Amino acid sequence: MKRMLNVGVAQLGPIARNETRSDVVARLIKLLTQAGEKGCNFVAFPELALTTFFPRWFFEDGDAELASYYEKEMPGAETQPLFDKAAELGIGFYLGYAELTTDEQGNERRFNTSILVDDKGTITGKYRKIHLPGHKENETWRPFQHLEKRYFEVGDTGFNSWDFMGGKVGMALCNDRRWPETYRVMALQGAEMIVLGYNTPMHYPPVPQHDHLQGFHNHVVMQASAYQNGCWIIACAKAGKEEGCDLLGQSCIIAPTGEIVAMATTVEDELIVGECDFERTREIKEHIFNFDLHRVPEEYKIISAPKK
Amino acid sequence: MKRMLNVGVAQLGPIARNETRSDVVARLIKLLTQAGEKGCNFVAFPELALTTFFPRWFFEDGDAELASYYEKEMPGAETQPLFDKAAELGIGFYLGYAELTTDEQGNERRFNTSILVDDKGTITGKYRKIHLPGHKENETWRPFQHLEKRYFEVGDTGFNSWDFMGGKVGMALCNDRRWPETYRVMALQGAEMIVLGYNTPMHYPPVPQHDHLQGFHNHVVMQASAYQNGCWIIACAKAGKEEGCDLLGQSCIIAPTGEIVAMATTVEDELIVGECDFERTREIKEHIFNFDLHRVPEEYKIISAPKK
Repeated sequence: MKRMLNVGVAQLGPIARNETRSDVVARLIKLLTQAGEKGCNFVAFPELALTTFFPRWFFEDGDAELASYYEKEMPGAETQPLFDKAAELGIGFYLGYAELTTDEQGNERRFNTSILVDDKGTITGKYRKIHLPGHKENETWRPFQHLEKRYFEVGDTGFNSWDFMGGKVGMALCNDRRWPETYRVMALQGAEMIVLGYNTPMHYPPVPQHDHLQGFHNHVVMQASAYQNGCWIIACAKAGKEEGCDLLGQSCIIAPTGEIVAMATTVEDELIVGECDFERTREIKEHIFNFDLHRVPEEYKIISAPKK
Repeated sequence: MKRMLNVGVAQLGPIARNETRSDVVARLIKLLTQAGEKGCNFVAFPELALTTFFPRWFFEDGDAELASYYEKEMPGAETQPLFDKAAELGIGFYLGYAELTTDEQGNERRFNTSILVDDKGTITGKYRKIHLPGHKENETWRPFQHLEKRYFEVGDTGFNSWDFMGGKVGMALCNDRRWPETYRVMALQGAEMIVLGYNTPMHYPPVPQHDHLQGFHNHVVMQASAYQNGCWIIACAKAGKEEGCDLLGQSCIIAPTGEIVAMATTVEDELIVGECDFERTREIKEHIFNFDLHRVPEEYKIISAPKK
């Protein structure tokens, strides 16, 4: 049996602070429709794909604008049209968004979340971001904030690998992609494809002397990880100058050999496509990175040891 | 205080099957002397630097030629001149060799080993290779064998990080460099530099369709790992056509940003040099990959879980 996903990566250009959910969803649907015309049966959207990247601003707890960036249900009234269109076209998708939920004790909890939705419109998997970058307090010396550690809790879902549209598919979000553990934990559960969205400012205020390396760093960690885990990596950016902050583009599809096989060349709304054969993962997983044959986990204990 | 190693990477061209230890040591001393003239105080030699890459042939247990490839003492009579010259020049070094030792029960044990020798000629650290590639039995369909799993035991030293010439330095060997765990285990112990030697055939018989990617794979895993761990990586090849088998060159020095800052351009004996400032590791280790701030080890348990 052919196990293949025809993948579209729906890079988004900037989303303005005052852009409505419905306007953004219309952009997503336009890219989804293009993907359908190109024969895709799966589309990846970015991290926090429904709004501007709001962690760049400091808001007091309880601020109404801050609250407006979270989704209380998925799909909700404004996102339902995306689910409907995708199901109509028979296209599965990955979507990142800010999630507000209420736990059994009645406490509000906020996560940076992504979902996998299958080609029937059913949510198959949910992931809550584990490697939150940035900081928790307002740091006024920065030209812009990166307050993910303030606005989100560390995700409580773990890294998983779902049976999804013929393959084993995992999810990650943005900064997760820099950490080799992210990919390994999913590959050890059998992942053949890892889908991730990102919002990556070109300027990193603590170490600006590395700014010119943002594109290189983005690709090198994902290319190495694709190879080291024998996985397809589907990486989708929110790109371009968003509210004065330049975001990296270079969305891409990376083969299990580590080769970039498709890449966005703008920092705007742009669809790139690739045929991803799950069987191509075996060339790596059964040979050079045959985990059963070559890994030595008793030597890796410090990696999962609790922090002091 | 300036914490700096002036590193020479002493790539070796092929070593013939009938080349004597003394002839090889003379080649090492020549490269060491060149390094001294260029102001180096540390030199990296390759994996199994004293002989041809003998795991390419099948030998019966107890074969005299096989036995001849192992070192019973380090330094021994033939390697003492290298230690003497290095101490005379005040140059520390890394050297890979096949080690034969006898344990307390009188059993012979064989390892693929490397050592760190300081600028006084003292062996500071020993590492025995953990990720042994290849196979254990004679596989006659291959154009050449890769019998590391037959000729060596899995190393029993663990991955370590030594206080060495002003910095924290770790060691790895060849196939270890493909595994992200290798670097992480050492970086979690504070490693600022990881030195490794390799012998990498250009042809990988199980998956020949990836042969054209050998150079890319070699660099991408090390560049990603340098960045992800904020470490210098010093990588030294045995290169060129050795007994009919083409070995990858491209020895290099990789900065903690993941940038290749020096690279060999031949597949012969060749010295490349670089100034490696241990303080440059802080740009990474204290920010984007601040382990204390950003790692989530409770999510990584499967990485060190025993194999089923």
